[in-house]
Amino acid sequence: MIPDASQQALLEWANLIGIENVLTDPALLTSVQTATFHTDVRVPAILKPGNTAEVVGILQIANRHQFPVYPVSSGKNWGYGSQVPTADLCALLDLGRMNRILDFNEDLAYVTVEPGVTQRQLFEYLQSRGGRLWMDASGASPDCSLIGNTMERGFGHTPYGDHFAHVCGLQVALGSGELVETGFSGYRDSQTGPVYRWGVGPYVDGLFSQSNLGVVTRMTVWLMPAPDYFEAFFFTCEKENALSGLVDALRPLRLNGTLRSTVHIGNDYKVLSGLQQYPWEHLKGRTPLMPADLAYFRRAMNFGCWNGSGGLYGTRAQVAEARRLLKAALKGKVSRLQFLDERKLLLATRFSRVYEILTGWDLSRTLDLARPVFGLLQGIPSEKTMGSVYWRKRQRAPEDADPNRDGCGLLWCAPITPLEGGHAHSAAMLATAILLKGGFEPMLSLSMVGERAIACVVSISYDRDVPGEDGRAMECHHQLLEALVGAGYPPYRLGVQSMKAVHPPAGMTKLINLIRHAADPNGILAPGRYHQGPSSRPSAVLEQLREH
Amino acid sequence: MIPDASQQALLEWANLIGIENVLTDPALLTSVQTATFHTDVRVPAILKPGNTAEVVGILQIANRHQFPVYPVSSGKNWGYGSQVPTADLCALLDLGRMNRILDFNEDLAYVTVEPGVTQRQLFEYLQSRGGRLWMDASGASPDCSLIGNTMERGFGHTPYGDHFAHVCGLQVALGSGELVETGFSGYRDSQTGPVYRWGVGPYVDGLFSQSNLGVVTRMTVWLMPAPDYFEAFFFTCEKENALSGLVDALRPLRLNGTLRSTVHIGNDYKVLSGLQQYPWEHLKGRTPLMPADLAYFRRAMNFGCWNGSGGLYGTRAQVAEARRLLKAALKGKVSRLQFLDERKLLLATRFSRVYEILTGWDLSRTLDLARPVFGLLQGIPSEKTMGSVYWRKRQRAPEDADPNRDGCGLLWCAPITPLEGGHAHSAAMLATAILLKGGFEPMLSLSMVGERAIACVVSISYDRDVPGEDGRAMECHHQLLEALVGAGYPPYRLGVQSMKAVHPPAGMTKLINLIRHAADPNGILAPGRYHQGPSSRPSAVLEQLREH
Repeated sequence: MIPDASQQALLEWANLIGIENVLTDPALLTSVQTATFHTDVRVPAILKPGNTAEVVGILQIANRHQFPVYPVSSGKNWGYGSQVPTADLCALLDLGRMNRILDFNEDLAYVTVEPGVTQRQLFEYLQSRGGRLWMDASGASPDCSLIGNTMERGFGHTPYGDHFAHVCGLQVALGSGELVETGFSGYRDSQTGPVYRWGVGPYVDGLFSQSNLGVVTRMTVWLMPAPDYFEAFFFTCEKENALSGLVDALRPLRLNGTLRSTVHIGNDYKVLSGLQQYPWEHLKGRTPLMPADLAYFRRAMNFGCWNGSGGLYGTRAQVAEARRLLKAALKGKVSRLQFLDERKLLLATRFSRVYEILTGWDLSRTLDLARPVFGLLQGIPSEKTMGSVYWRKRQRAPEDADPNRDGCGLLWCAPITPLEGGHAHSAAMLATAILLKGGFEPMLSLSMVGERAIACVVSISYDRDVPGEDGRAMECHHQLLEALVGAGYPPYRLGVQSMKAVHPPAGMTKLINLIRHAADPNGILAPGRYHQGPSSRPSAVLEQLREH
Repeated sequence: MIPDASQQALLEWANLIGIENVLTDPALLTSVQTATFHTDVRVPAILKPGNTAEVVGILQIANRHQFPVYPVSSGKNWGYGSQVPTADLCALLDLGRMNRILDFNEDLAYVTVEPGVTQRQLFEYLQSRGGRLWMDASGASPDCSLIGNTMERGFGHTPYGDHFAHVCGLQVALGSGELVETGFSGYRDSQTGPVYRWGVGPYVDGLFSQSNLGVVTRMTVWLMPAPDYFEAFFFTCEKENALSGLVDALRPLRLNGTLRSTVHIGNDYKVLSGLQQYPWEHLKGRTPLMPADLAYFRRAMNFGCWNGSGGLYGTRAQVAEARRLLKAALKGKVSRLQFLDERKLLLATRFSRVYEILTGWDLSRTLDLARPVFGLLQGIPSEKTMGSVYWRKRQRAPEDADPNRDGCGLLWCAPITPLEGGHAHSAAMLATAILLKGGFEPMLSLSMVGERAIACVVSISYDRDVPGEDGRAMECHHQLLEALVGAGYPPYRLGVQSMKAVHPPAGMTKLINLIRHAADPNGILAPGRYHQGPSSRPSAVLEQLREH
C-alpha cells in the first residue's frame, strides 16, 4: 500500500525511534481509523516517540519527505473523532509514551507534564503526595491526556475548570521542526517559567490551542489547593420552561465570585442517559424517546426537566455563606435544592432508606449519578461518564469499554451562548427540535464555563450497528451546527466531523494561514485541522499516495 | 526636513483624514519626542485618525511609501517611554480621537471601547449609569487608555486586575493593513463575541499584546459587579527582613481565593515618595536618601519598612470571613493590621484625632496616602499616584502635572518573581543594592498579580534637569535589569529604554519574526518594539530620511 518514497520516510523514522515504535499492523491501523461515527481516512503508520528530540526528528523527516503527521496525546477525543486524523494518509504521531511528570511544586501549586500524562495518572500522583493539591478533571475518560484536552480547550468542574486559562510554559515543536518554549520557560535560568502565563513580548500560547501549528511536548498545569471544606449542590426543576429563569438566577452568583466553578445543568434526557441505557423494553423498540415518554422516567427516578449541580469551596464559613446566597437565588425557581458533603454522602450511601424518610429525597437511585459528579467537582476523574455513550446499544457497556470498537455512535456539538436565560433557552429549544426531528434524543448539558458564557454540549448518541444511522446522525449533526451558528451560537470546539462546518471571518483565516505557512511551510502537520483556507496545500506524499 | 517621497505620504494621509489631523507643528513634535528619560528619536508627524477605516487607510499608505508608523492610544506610558517611538522617524499614530464606548451590557458586565477611551472616561460612564459595575484601574494616570494599558499587559488592584485576562473580541489592523476580528467577534450575527475569550480555532489575542503586529482598534473589557460590601486592609511591618515571611503568609490566601485581588507591598522609600517630595532640607541637599535616614521618617509619619494593602470584596459575611483568615495569617508578622471601609474612612477623615485616640492608629497623615489606594482597590482611577514622579524635583508638582514637560526623571523596571518569600526578598535586595550604589532611592512595590507571581516594580526617580543624571539613571537601569534577568527574574514589560535589554530564546524570536513578516511584510509598524531579531528590516523611507 505504501509507495517507495514513503517507505523511505518510514525507514528513517524507524531508524530514529526504533522499529518497535513504528507500527503498521493492519488491525491496529484499523482501530485508530475508527471513531464514534463514520470516517474514511486511512492511517498508514503509527509513530511512538519517546521524547521531545524524537518528536523534532520525526517532524524533520516528515518535512523532508512531505509525509504528513497527525499528533494525538491519548486519542480519547470521543465524539469529536477519537484519534482519527482530519486528512487521509497521515502518519499518527502517538505521544502516549511521553508520560513523565517533570516537575512538581506544592507551595506554588503546579505540575509540569508531557503529553502522555493522563487525568488518572496526575490524580494518582497527587494522591500519593498527600492530596493537598487538586487537579481539575474533565468529564471525559480518566485516560484522557491533560495536554490533549487543554489544547482542545476542554473544561472541567472545579474553579480551575477553564483548562487553557490555567496552564503556561509550553514547549512546542512547530510543524517545521523548530522548537519553541513559551512565556518565561525558555529564558535561561528563569525562576518564573511555571508561575507566570504571559512572559514578555507577544503571548503566543493560544496559537497552539485548537490548531495545527505545533506539537505541544510540555506544559505546566496550575493546581488548586484542596479547600478546607467542600460541598456539592444539586437542584432539580420540574418545569420544562424553567431553564431561562435558572440561568438568570445563577448568573449574578457566578459573576460576583460566590460560585467559583462551573454550574452544570442537564436536561432530563441527559440525566436518564447517565442512569440507564435506552429503555428498549418500555418503548417496545420505538425510537426516538419523545418528551411525553419522559414524564414516567422523571417520576420513577426522581429527576426533573432540568437538573443542576455545582460545588462550593472554602472554609466552612465561606461555604455556609455561599450556600445561603445560592438558596436565596434559587428560591421559588427549583423543586429541590440539596447540599451534599463527604459525611452526608457516606451516610446516604449507608442509610439511603432512612435518609429518604428524613429528608424526603430518594437518594437510592440518584446516588449512582451523584457520586461521579461529586467526584468531578473535586477534580476526581470518573469512569462513569462513559456510560451514556452506550445509550442506544442493545448490549451493556463492557468492563473494558471502548466506544470506537463497540460501534457506539456519538457526535458532540458544543455551541457557546451568552450566560443569559433567553439565549440558553433558544439554543436548547433549537437543539431539541432538530435532534427529535432527526430521530435522536436531545441530550443537553449547559455548563457555565465562565462568568459570561455557557457551553451547551449536545450529544447525538446512536448505535453505529443500525444500518443507515451513521448517515442520519451526521446529517442531523450538520443541520444542528448550521442552525446554531446561524442563530449566533458558534461552537467552542470542532471535531473531525465539523472542521469545515464553521466559516471564520476571512481576515482571521488569512492571518492563521499566514502563520501556518510560517510555522509549517510544507503543511505536514495535521492538515485540515481548524481554520481551513486557501493556503492549506496538499503535500507531495499525499498526492503520490492517493495515486495508489 | 522631510524629503519629497515622504511628503507624498503626508499628502495622502492629509487627504485621507483631513489636513487638521496631520500635525507637524515643531513644538508639538518636540513634546511627543520627550519622555521621562533621555531619548533621541525624531517624530516627523502626528496622525490622528477618527475611525478604524482611517487607521486601515493610514497603514495602507504607510506600506505604499514604506513610511513607518508608531501607534499610541493615550501616550501616557510614563516610565516606559511615554509616547516616544522605539525607532527614529516614525509618524506617530495617535488614536486618541477614537474614544467611543461602543457597547455596554450591564447584565453580562462588559463594555466595548475604542483605543482613545481612558480610565477616567470609563469610570465616569459607569458612574453615570448607576455604578453597579466596577472597572479595574491601574495606578497610572486617569488619562491612560484602557486598550493601551491592557495591550501592555498592565495590572490593577481589584479582582479584575490582570487586565489582559479580562478582555476579548479584539478588532485589529495588522501592519499590512488587513483587518482582523478575534474570538467570536468576527462571526456574522454571533451573540458571543463579547462574552467568550477563546472563540474557535487558535486563540490569537495574545499576539497583539506587547508586540508590533497590529493596531488594536476595538476591545471588549469585562467589568466586575459592585460587591455588596468592600473593605480595604492596610498593614505595616517594622522589621526590615520581614518581606519574605509576609509573602509566604499571604500566598495561601491568594491561592485559595480568599484574597481575590492583588496585595500590594511597598517599601519605606515607596511610601515616603507617595507622601512627600525628596526631603532636601532635612538632608541638606545630600543624595541619595540612605536606609539609615529613613528611620526618622518612618517614625514621624507612622509607616513601616514594609507596608501592604489589599481589598476584600463580597457580602458582609464573606468579607468578615476573609478578614478573620487574613488576621490569622498575618498574626505576629505585622506591626499593625487595619481594616477600612467607606464609613470608617469618612469617620476617620472627620475625626482623625479622636480616631487616633480610640484605635492608636494615626490616620491624619497617612489618610492622604490611603485615600487613593482605597479608591484604586475599587477601580477608581487616581491622580495622586502621579505625585511620586516629582520626587527629586525642587519645585512641587503643578496642577496640570506633565512629567515629560517638567523634566521629571522616571525609569521603571518590573521583574516578575515567583510568589515565594525567598525570591521576593532576593529581588528586593538586589534592586535596593543596585539603586543605592547608583545614587538613587530604591522605591519598590511588590504586587501579587496572580496566584503564583509577584510583579516587583522598581522606580528610578530623578531630576532630568540635574546635569548627568539622565546618563547615570539609564546606566543604573541597565545594570538593574541585567542583574534581575541574570538572577532569574525577567521583567513583565519593556519600555523604549529596555526593548533590547532582554534576550528571548532564539526559537521564540524566530517564530515572532516569521509572524511579524507575515502580518507586516514591509515592517512599517512600530519597528523595534519587542522581540528584536534579524528579520526586522529598516524601511526605505527610513534610509532615505536618514540621509537628510
